Amino acid sequence: MKSLFLLLLLYCTNSLVAQKEMSTGKQNFVLVIHGGAGTITRQNMTEQNERAYKLSLEKALRAGYEILNSGGSSLDAVEATVKILEDNPLFNAGKGAVFTHEGKIELDAAIMNGKNLAAGSMAGVTIIKNPVSGARAVMEKSGHVMLIGKGAEAFAAEQGLDIVDPSYFYTQSRWDSLQNLIKQDSIKNKINKVNTKTLVEEAKNNDSKFGTVGAVALDVQGNLAAATSTGGMSNKKYGRVGDVPIIGAGTYANNATCAISCTGWGEFFIRLVVAKSVSDLMEYKNLSLQKAAEEMIMKKVPQLGGDGGLIAVDKKGNFAMPFNTAGMYRGYIRSDGKAVVKIYKD
Amino acid sequence: MKSLFLLLLLYCTNSLVAQKEMSTGKQNFVLVIHGGAGTITRQNMTEQNERAYKLSLEKALRAGYEILNSGGSSLDAVEATVKILEDNPLFNAGKGAVFTHEGKIELDAAIMNGKNLAAGSMAGVTIIKNPVSGARAVMEKSGHVMLIGKGAEAFAAEQGLDIVDPSYFYTQSRWDSLQNLIKQDSIKNKINKVNTKTLVEEAKNNDSKFGTVGAVALDVQGNLAAATSTGGMSNKKYGRVGDVPIIGAGTYANNATCAISCTGWGEFFIRLVVAKSVSDLMEYKNLSLQKAAEEMIMKKVPQLGGDGGLIAVDKKGNFAMPFNTAGMYRGYIRSDGKAVVKIYKD
Repeated sequence: MKSLFLLLLLYCTNSLVAQKEMSTGKQNFVLVIHGGAGTITRQNMTEQNERAYKLSLEKALRAGYEILNSGGSSLDAVEATVKILEDNPLFNAGKGAVFTHEGKIELDAAIMNGKNLAAGSMAGVTIIKNPVSGARAVMEKSGHVMLIGKGAEAFAAEQGLDIVDPSYFYTQSRWDSLQNLIKQDSIKNKINKVNTKTLVEEAKNNDSKFGTVGAVALDVQGNLAAATSTGGMSNKKYGRVGDVPIIGAGTYANNATCAISCTGWGEFFIRLVVAKSVSDLMEYKNLSLQKAAEEMIMKKVPQLGGDGGLIAVDKKGNFAMPFNTAGMYRGYIRSDGKAVVKIYKD
Repeated sequence: MKSLFLLLLLYCTNSLVAQKEMSTGKQNFVLVIHGGAGTITRQNMTEQNERAYKLSLEKALRAGYEILNSGGSSLDAVEATVKILEDNPLFNAGKGAVFTHEGKIELDAAIMNGKNLAAGSMAGVTIIKNPVSGARAVMEKSGHVMLIGKGAEAFAAEQGLDIVDPSYFYTQSRWDSLQNLIKQDSIKNKINKVNTKTLVEEAKNNDSKFGTVGAVALDVQGNLAAATSTGGMSNKKYGRVGDVPIIGAGTYANNATCAISCTGWGEFFIRLVVAKSVSDLMEYKNLSLQKAAEEMIMKKVPQLGGDGGLIAVDKKGNFAMPFNTAGMYRGYIRSDGKAVVKIYKD
């Protein structure tokens, strides 16, 4: 009888603890971020740079954590987190974006709400301070999913978003990168007359030119969201758009499966519709999040000749951060508030 | 002994016939096309218009058939077929495209090769006579997948594609439609002050404003291809882009599964990544083409609140043309050369 009473007491106590953890929102949320994948090795990194990247990633994680920890939505968390990364000149998105061949900035971003499959994206915008907030406005206030160029900018201005002069996005290091790339191109062009082959070869030789930021989250209500933002490819021409603003390619979220944000050689992520494929491998083939993410990043993308990585979180709070490049700026934080940030493979 | 000889003779003859059919390319090819889905009913159609649509669809099928019947590729067939539909003022693509709110034409198109998952697309272009050929040039000659706006136009011009003055695309009937829509908007705006709700409601009330053309094909080599082209949504604002140029949403092809071209309320097709979903339902859930296509068009799209249809062909030559609207301009042709075109449900 005494032991039965003790068992009952133990059961009630456990239930109360569980309930309390739920009600304070301390349970079951997770935020994962990336700041781009590529040829990122210890040899090429100064100690000072490494510290700057790590602190920046941690700052972004903290901003999202505050929202999730106070019971906020995954949608608010991924937007706030990506805004911090957009405002940081270290990353190729918002301030610090790479330049086009013509010396301009053309930004792309997308956001998706796993709860209702609402989605918004912008491509080729030049004066919107935070394209991820532009994407969110498209999702919530335009009746559309994708707006591009001048039209997208007019919409953002009407919606009262922060509009800046294009010079806001300028950073010396990105400008220098562009000049180097143009110089390399010019030498190449003197050797081979510019032709189709050169264009295709140029596109192939861009391992170090990519960069993207992104965030995925699961909130205490069990809702998933994903957001991605980028300046695209350095020295890009002809209004090139990568996978970031393409729903299903670089960005996707569905409460039934997972939320995903990709980074890498965008053309391959579009052709393989990578983000939706991860979700479908879970939904239709019953793969785990980790297996589904690895199937795309470690197998399908390199098989086709591309590279990159992704971050993903599922409805149970499992997360994956696979990449097939030397490094990927990445990090995660859960309800325990311990931020973990990583750059290299080990 | 005599019967064994006869059996052997029969076997050899059959093999030779089968081989001959293969080598003359008379076997196993199919081309399916659409010219848009929507409120298309017998009541709203004159006999003359119906005949014009049917003749136009048949002409497009014949062009693709000639290519496929002489052993040409599915890629060449879908491009040639879509070009014919783009050049036809009856359909909302190329000449005859609908106008934006500002009275301009903004065209989107995509093409995909199921053999190697190569893909190309253009969005928001205003001077390229045949955007589907623009998309093909992007796929084959840019090293990229998606180009937008002025950049895409500069690329097309450099590649020697047909460039036209925007006035080329003008048709009186589309202009009149725009004026009607603007008048309706103006009345609505006097009643409700323009606000977010109005924008979203406007987007909802566009059943009759959509239109798209597309083609999918299987060639005698067993290769699949898909192409889609559109002027988008009449009276569209803010550089809106629909599902057509989004690989995986409105256009997709993969020799392992099927080739797909969608038409309808693009926002829903993007959010559901419809074309890739059909392919994944086949690849990962072993559904037939018909079942997979119906799962998306008769269930998922209307469940989310959207409407439209798609055409699809699989590697065995099975094809599907489901739609959840009153009608869809559509047709198919196989190696027997008999063109079948349909408009309404029955």
